[in-house]
Amino acid sequence: MSQPLKVAVAGLGTVGSGTVGLLEANAALLERRAGRTIVVSAVADLDRRDRGFSVDGYAWYEDAVAMAKEADVDVVVELIGGSEGAARAVCEAAIAAGRHVVTANKALIAHHGMELAIAAEAAGVTLAYEAAVGGGIPIIKGLREGLVGNNHRRIYGILNGTCNYILTTMQASGREFGEVLAEAQALGYAEADPSFDVDGIDTAHKLAILCTVAFGCTLDFDSIHVEGIRHVSSVDIAFAEELGYRIKLLGIAALTDNGVERRVHPCMVPLSAPIAHVEGVFNAVVADGDFVDRVVMEGRGAGERPTASAVVADIVDIARGQRVPVFAVPASRLEKLPAAAMSGHRGAYYVRLMVLDRPGVFADVAGVLRDHHVSMEAVLQRARAPDEPVPVVMTTHDTEEAAMVGSLEEIAAMAACVEPPRMIRIEPF
Amino acid sequence: MSQPLKVAVAGLGTVGSGTVGLLEANAALLERRAGRTIVVSAVADLDRRDRGFSVDGYAWYEDAVAMAKEADVDVVVELIGGSEGAARAVCEAAIAAGRHVVTANKALIAHHGMELAIAAEAAGVTLAYEAAVGGGIPIIKGLREGLVGNNHRRIYGILNGTCNYILTTMQASGREFGEVLAEAQALGYAEADPSFDVDGIDTAHKLAILCTVAFGCTLDFDSIHVEGIRHVSSVDIAFAEELGYRIKLLGIAALTDNGVERRVHPCMVPLSAPIAHVEGVFNAVVADGDFVDRVVMEGRGAGERPTASAVVADIVDIARGQRVPVFAVPASRLEKLPAAAMSGHRGAYYVRLMVLDRPGVFADVAGVLRDHHVSMEAVLQRARAPDEPVPVVMTTHDTEEAAMVGSLEEIAAMAACVEPPRMIRIEPF
Repeated sequence: MSQPLKVAVAGLGTVGSGTVGLLEANAALLERRAGRTIVVSAVADLDRRDRGFSVDGYAWYEDAVAMAKEADVDVVVELIGGSEGAARAVCEAAIAAGRHVVTANKALIAHHGMELAIAAEAAGVTLAYEAAVGGGIPIIKGLREGLVGNNHRRIYGILNGTCNYILTTMQASGREFGEVLAEAQALGYAEADPSFDVDGIDTAHKLAILCTVAFGCTLDFDSIHVEGIRHVSSVDIAFAEELGYRIKLLGIAALTDNGVERRVHPCMVPLSAPIAHVEGVFNAVVADGDFVDRVVMEGRGAGERPTASAVVADIVDIARGQRVPVFAVPASRLEKLPAAAMSGHRGAYYVRLMVLDRPGVFADVAGVLRDHHVSMEAVLQRARAPDEPVPVVMTTHDTEEAAMVGSLEEIAAMAACVEPPRMIRIEPF
Repeated sequence: MSQPLKVAVAGLGTVGSGTVGLLEANAALLERRAGRTIVVSAVADLDRRDRGFSVDGYAWYEDAVAMAKEADVDVVVELIGGSEGAARAVCEAAIAAGRHVVTANKALIAHHGMELAIAAEAAGVTLAYEAAVGGGIPIIKGLREGLVGNNHRRIYGILNGTCNYILTTMQASGREFGEVLAEAQALGYAEADPSFDVDGIDTAHKLAILCTVAFGCTLDFDSIHVEGIRHVSSVDIAFAEELGYRIKLLGIAALTDNGVERRVHPCMVPLSAPIAHVEGVFNAVVADGDFVDRVVMEGRGAGERPTASAVVADIVDIARGQRVPVFAVPASRLEKLPAAAMSGHRGAYYVRLMVLDRPGVFADVAGVLRDHHVSMEAVLQRARAPDEPVPVVMTTHDTEEAAMVGSLEEIAAMAACVEPPRMIRIEPF
C-alpha cells in the first residue's frame, strides 16, 4: 500500500472549503482511483470561523507562507487569490521547499506563471492550475494531454460566467446592462466590485494561460487587447437576434501571419456555432487542432464545487505520480512569438450609429467608409423619425481594424451622429 | 535525453494511415511535448498498396500478431478492428510480450476489456483506448483524470456520427430515413452494411465503456437495451420540432435505485439542452458529476485525423510515463453492480399513433392508457380526415416503461390503429 498523500490548503474561502469538503466526502472513491489515500494535514486562514466542517484534525496556520515552508505535506494548495502578496509567496515557498503546488489562481499564473514554472521544473515538483481556467472544465488537461498531438491554430471561449450570465439575462429579458448587473450582484453572481469580470480582465488572465498551453509561446498578458461588456446595449442584443447572432464576451487567441492575436471583447457569434448556445454562468472553450478539428468543452466556470473538482483532479494527478510539463512543453522551451497588433486584425464588423434622420446623413457615412476602404455587407434601419435620433446598423465584409476604427472616429465627429458609434466584431465560427 | 519511444502500428486502414501521418507530420511538436522522439518502427497490414506515405523505413509484417510478439517496439497500436480474431490476438500478444497497447477498437474493449485490463495491469503495461469512444474528443481522459474527483450519477451522449448525420439531415430536409441513409452511404458517411451504426450497436459498445469508466462497475455489454434509428420517421421529426425537441440517438447510463440503467435509443431532447445543437457527424458526451455538475465535450466522433489525434494522445501518455488504471480504478476493484431492467425505467414518452379518424377511437386509446396508469400530458392531432389514417401524437407524464409498452401493445391491436404505434422516450436534460 502506498503512503497517503498529505495536502495543505492555503485559504479557506469558497473554493478552499469546497476542496476540503470534496476530499472528505469522496475520500473512499479517491482512494480507489488514486491508489492511495489523500489526507488534508494542514490548513491556513486568518480566521477560524465555522465553515461547516471540523478543522480540529488539521494543523492550523494563520501564516500560509509558514505552512508552505514548514508543514509536513507533499502538496500545497493555494486558494488565497490575487497575483501578488500571500498567494505568490505561498507558491514560491512551497516550490522552494520541494512541495508540489496546486492553485486555482488565474491572475497569479497569467502574471508570474513563467517564473513559477521554471522554479517548479527545476525543483522537480508539479505546478498545476486546472481550476484557473474554465472552473470545473478539464480544459488544461484536455490541451496538454488529450489534444497533445495537435498544432492548434486558434483557441477561444466564454471564460467568465458573470459576463455570460449578464449577457444571457439581457438577451432573455431585454433589460439593460446596469440593471442586470445590479441583480447579478444581489444574487451573488457578480462581485461588489465587478470590474475584473465585466471589464474583461478575468477573461484575459485565462486567455493568457490558454494561449501559452495551446501554442507553446511565452505568457504575454500585456499584449492582450481587452474590452469588457459595459457598452453592450439591449439595442445591440436585439439587432444581433435579428441578424442571427448572439453577443458573447470571448477570449480569442489565434496564430496569424502577423503573429499571435490575443483579444478579449464582445463578439457576434452565429447561432450555428455551439458556443452561441452556452448560457448563464456556464463557460466553454473551443480548440481548433490541425488533426482533431473543433473540440468544445462546456461546464460551470466557477463556484465552490466545480472549482473544487478541478483542484482535486490536480491533486489526484500528483497522487498517481502523473507529471507533465507545466505549459505542455518545458518552460525553457516556450517560444517568444511576436504579438499581432490589434490594428492589423481583419474581420467583419457590426456597427451601430445613432444618427439624426436627415437627408444626406447616410451618404456622408457611406462616403467615410468608402474612403477607408470599408465594404458594407448590409444596412438595417428600422424606424423613420425625421430630426430624431434613430439607430442605423451596418455589417461589413472583412476589413482591417485600423480602417474600421478610423472610419468610426470620423463618423463620430459628424454633427448628425448623436452618440459614440458602437462596434462589435463578428466572428466567423 | 530520453530514449525514443518505438511504436508498431497494426492495421494501415484509415485510422492507421492517419496515425502514422500524424506521428510524421507533427514529430517535432511531439518531441517538445513528450520530452522524447516517437518513432514508428514497424507496421503490419496484408497489402503494401500506396497509402500516401513511404513505408520503406519501417519493418513490414503481414502477420500483425507476429509483429506484436517480435518487433523491437515499446508500444503496439491495434487499428485492425473487430472484437475477435486478429485484433484481439494482437492485443493479447503485445501484453504478453510486455508491450504497451493502444487501440481504437470499441467492440474489443466492450467485449473483452476486462480480461485485457487484468492482463495489462498484471504485466505493468498500459492498455489505452481514448479513440474508442467519441473519436477525437478526450472523454476517457476527461473521466479518468479530469473529473476524477466526482461520483458520476449519469453519463450520456451522441456517440455515433453516422446516426447523428442521418437524423440531422432528416431534420433539415424533411426526407425519410432510407433516402438519407442511401445518400450518407454514397458520401462515405455510412458503411455499405450500416447495421452496426444505425441499429445502435456501435453506440452500445461505446456506452459500455463509458459506463465502466464513470461508475467503476464491470463491463456489461449484454445488459444494454439497444434500439436504433430505422423507425424514426420524418413525421416524428416534424412533431418533435413542434414540441420543442430534437430527436437524437443517445447512449445513456445512469445509477438508479434499481441498479445501473444502460440504454441506447432515439430520444426527444429539449432544445434547451446543449446536445440538442450537436449536429451532423459531431459527437458529444455529457457527464453529471456530484461536484462538477454538467460537463459537455463535443467534437468529431470519427474520421482519419480526429481518431489519429486520440490514438496519439495515448501514445504520448506512454512516452511521458503517464499511467492510470485502465478503467479509472484497477480492474480487480471494479464492482459488479446489478443491471436495472428496462421494464422498470421511468420517464416521459412521446407516442405517435396512426389511427382511423372515427368517433370513439380516442376514447378507446385514453381508456387503455388509464387502465395502465399512464398519465397524458398533451395530445396533438393536426389533420381531420374522416375514415382516413391520421397521426395522433401524445406526450405522457413520467411513467413506467412496462406500463407504456403494455398500453401500446393493446392499442396496436385496436382495429382503428393502422400502423404499429411509435414511442420515443423524452429525456429531461
